[in-house]
Amino acid sequence: MSLIVMKFGGSSVGTTERMGRVAQRIVDQKLQGHRVVVVVSAMGDTTDDLIDKSKEINDNPPAREMDMLLTTGEQISVALLSMAIHKLGHNAKSYTGWQAGIVTEAVHAKARISDISPDRIFKALDDSQIVIVAGFQGMTEDGEITTLGRGGSDTTAVALAAAIKADVCEIYTDVDGIYSTDPRVVKCARKLDVISYDEMLELAHLGAAVLHPRAVEYAKNYNVNLVVRSSFSQNPGTLVKEEAEMEQGIVVRGIAFDKNVARISVLGVVDVPGVLASMFGALAAEGIDVDIIVQSGVSNGTADFSFTVALSDRANAIRVIESIKSKVPFSELTYEENLVKVSIVGAGMVSNPGVAATMFDAISKQGVSIKMVSTSEIKCSCVIAAEPLQDVVRALHTAYGLDTEVAAFVGGPQDRR
Amino acid sequence: MSLIVMKFGGSSVGTTERMGRVAQRIVDQKLQGHRVVVVVSAMGDTTDDLIDKSKEINDNPPAREMDMLLTTGEQISVALLSMAIHKLGHNAKSYTGWQAGIVTEAVHAKARISDISPDRIFKALDDSQIVIVAGFQGMTEDGEITTLGRGGSDTTAVALAAAIKADVCEIYTDVDGIYSTDPRVVKCARKLDVISYDEMLELAHLGAAVLHPRAVEYAKNYNVNLVVRSSFSQNPGTLVKEEAEMEQGIVVRGIAFDKNVARISVLGVVDVPGVLASMFGALAAEGIDVDIIVQSGVSNGTADFSFTVALSDRANAIRVIESIKSKVPFSELTYEENLVKVSIVGAGMVSNPGVAATMFDAISKQGVSIKMVSTSEIKCSCVIAAEPLQDVVRALHTAYGLDTEVAAFVGGPQDRR
Repeated sequence: MSLIVMKFGGSSVGTTERMGRVAQRIVDQKLQGHRVVVVVSAMGDTTDDLIDKSKEINDNPPAREMDMLLTTGEQISVALLSMAIHKLGHNAKSYTGWQAGIVTEAVHAKARISDISPDRIFKALDDSQIVIVAGFQGMTEDGEITTLGRGGSDTTAVALAAAIKADVCEIYTDVDGIYSTDPRVVKCARKLDVISYDEMLELAHLGAAVLHPRAVEYAKNYNVNLVVRSSFSQNPGTLVKEEAEMEQGIVVRGIAFDKNVARISVLGVVDVPGVLASMFGALAAEGIDVDIIVQSGVSNGTADFSFTVALSDRANAIRVIESIKSKVPFSELTYEENLVKVSIVGAGMVSNPGVAATMFDAISKQGVSIKMVSTSEIKCSCVIAAEPLQDVVRALHTAYGLDTEVAAFVGGPQDRR
Repeated sequence: MSLIVMKFGGSSVGTTERMGRVAQRIVDQKLQGHRVVVVVSAMGDTTDDLIDKSKEINDNPPAREMDMLLTTGEQISVALLSMAIHKLGHNAKSYTGWQAGIVTEAVHAKARISDISPDRIFKALDDSQIVIVAGFQGMTEDGEITTLGRGGSDTTAVALAAAIKADVCEIYTDVDGIYSTDPRVVKCARKLDVISYDEMLELAHLGAAVLHPRAVEYAKNYNVNLVVRSSFSQNPGTLVKEEAEMEQGIVVRGIAFDKNVARISVLGVVDVPGVLASMFGALAAEGIDVDIIVQSGVSNGTADFSFTVALSDRANAIRVIESIKSKVPFSELTYEENLVKVSIVGAGMVSNPGVAATMFDAISKQGVSIKMVSTSEIKCSCVIAAEPLQDVVRALHTAYGLDTEVAAFVGGPQDRR
C-alpha cells in the first residue's frame, strides 16, 4: 500500500463529464489499495471568467481581493470532484488550502509555501477518505487567503507530497509524459521514461510547459518522486527523480525552445568598473528578468553588450537603459525580436566533449546563423532567427539520436496552473 | 459616529453594474463618518448555477460538499464588492465567514451560529477599512465550512450586528420597507415606519418574504435595531425594534397571506388518550411542519381533526397518517388545496376586543366562508378559499383603517437568501 498524491489540472476537470472520468481514475488507485490525496486546479475557464468579471469592476484590483476571488475556482473544483467520487460509492472529503494546513508567506498573488501541517489530511486518510485539496492556494499565519501564482497547483501537489512523505506525486496532464522535444514540432519525439530534476528544471525553464519550474525545484529539494502522465491514457508516463540513468548512447535528454525572446544590444558602453552591475541592477529593480548576457571584447575603452528578455519586457528594458544613460553612457541601443532560443539539455553533456559543436554544426547546416550562445554543465542554448524553427529542432533531434519510430501522442492545449 | 451593519441580498448585487451602485451606497455611509460592516449574499443566479452544476455530477451530493461548493458564491461577491469600493478610492477588506469569526454548530446546510469572535473585524475597522463579510456561511469548531440555510445572510447580518454591538443593522432589499400588506395586491398598502419584533415575526412567518424569521428572532433575542430599506431609493425604510408605538387608532399593523397551504382532515378518529400525540408525533418525526390544528367536538367516542401543512408536504403527511392507522384508527381521510391563510397581525389586538369579529365580518361580506381559525395574542389567521384573495385582503385592509392615499413602491422579485 502506497501513499499517492495525484494532481489534475484545469483542462482535466474542464467539464462535469471529465470530472467524472477523473473521479474514476482516482477511485481506481484507491481500489488498488493505495491511500490517495488529490490536488485539483480550477475547472477549465473558471479562472479567466473570474478575472474578466473583476476587470468589469476594477481594472486594477487589490491583490488581496484578487486572491479572495480566484481561490473560489479551486474550491468549486474540489467540492464537485468530491461529489463525483461519492457518486461512485466512495468516501471523499474536499479541503481548501487553509483547511489542508497549507501556510504561505504573507504575499498575495505569488506566495511561497512556508509550512504544511498535514494533521487533518492524515486524520481523513486514517478514516478511509480520499482527500481532495484545492491547489494554488494557502493561508498566511494571520489567516489571510493567498495564491501561489503560476504553476501553483503543481507546487501544492509536490509540497503536499513532501509534507506527508508520499511515495509518489503523479502530475496528470494532457500529454503522455515528458518528451525529448515538443511532439507537435517533431513527430518522432521520444517519450522519456526517466529524467533528473536538474534536466527537468532546465527543460521546464526553457519552455517545456508540462511542469512548472517551482514545482520541480520543490521536488528536488525534498526529493519527491514525480511522475508526469496523461489523464486520458494508462501509459506509465515519465518519472522525474534525483539521478536518472542514461540510455545507451544518449547524451542529450531533450531539446527545448522558447519563442518569448527579445534581444537588446547596448553598443559602445564606456567600460569602467561597475558598469555591468549598474545596468543589470537597474533592470532587476524594475522586475525585469534577464536571461542570456553576452559581452564582446573591449576596444578603445568601450564594450558591446547583448542580453535577452521576455518579449513583454522589451519596451520596459529599453526605457530603463535609456533612463540611466547619464550613469552608464553608451553610443547605441538596438533590439531584435522574431527570435527563438533553442536549447539542448542532458546531464551527460558535462562528460562528453563535442556536444556543443554538434549543435552548432546542425544549426549551421540549416543555413541559420547563431546570434548568442549560453552554456551550463547540462545545457547549451543558442539564440537564432525564429524561422525555420521546425527544421532546426528536427535536425538537432536527429543529430543527438533522439528520433523514435513511434509517432508521439499529442493531447489538447497544455495546462500549467 | 455610528457603527452600522449593511446587508445586501443577491439581486442587489446581481450584476457588476449593480455591484458598483451598492459600493457607492456603502461609501456614502462611510463618508457620513460611520464605521461600516457589510454583509453580502451571492450574486443573482450564482447559487442556482452552482446547484445545477452539482446535479450534473451527483443528484444526491453530501451536504458537507454542497456547503463547500455554495460558500464560493458569497466569497466571489465579497471580493468583487471590495474591488468596487477600492475603485471608488476607499479602503475595504473582504472576509469569508470563518475569517470573520463566525462559528456554527457542526451541521451542514442549515447550521445555527453558535459564536462570533469579531476581533478581526474590529481590527480592520480600527484600520479605517470598510469590512465586507460573506453572508450565509460559517465554520465549525473543527474547521469545517458550513452554511446557515435559507435567510442565512439576514441572520449573518443580525448576528454580526449583535456581536459587534452595532447601532443599527440595515437590511437592503428591493422594497421600500415593511408594508401593511403586499403592495402588489393592495395598491394603497401602507409602508410602516416602525414595527415590533413580535409583529414582524408573525408577518415573516406568515409569508411576508422581506425578512427571514430566524433573523428577526435573533434580532429580538439580542435587541438589535433592524432597518429594512430599499437599495434603490433613499427612503428611510421600516425600523424593527422591541416595542413599537401604535399609530393613532390603528390596532392591526399588517395583513399577511400564505398560499402554500393544504388542509388535511382526519374524520372519525377513535378518541382515546394519546391519539393527538401519536398522530402529530408521527408527522413531526417525518419533518412535516403542522401549522393550524382544529379539533371538532367528540361524538359517539370519535372526533374529527383538521390541520394544515405546506403544499409540498401534503402527500407525505397523508402517507404518514395512513401508515399509523392501526395505532390511530379513523374512518375517513380527506384533503383540500387551493386555499389561502389570511392573517391580521398587531400587538394592540390583545387589548382591543372585537378585532377578530371585524375580520370574520369583512371576510363574510365578500361571500367567503371561513374553514379554519387560529388566534394568538397578536394575530388572527383564517383559512379560506384561495379566491377571491385580492378582494378579501383589500376589504380587511380597509376595515382596519390601513389604506393610504399614496400608491406603494413595488420593486422586482424579492430576495431572501
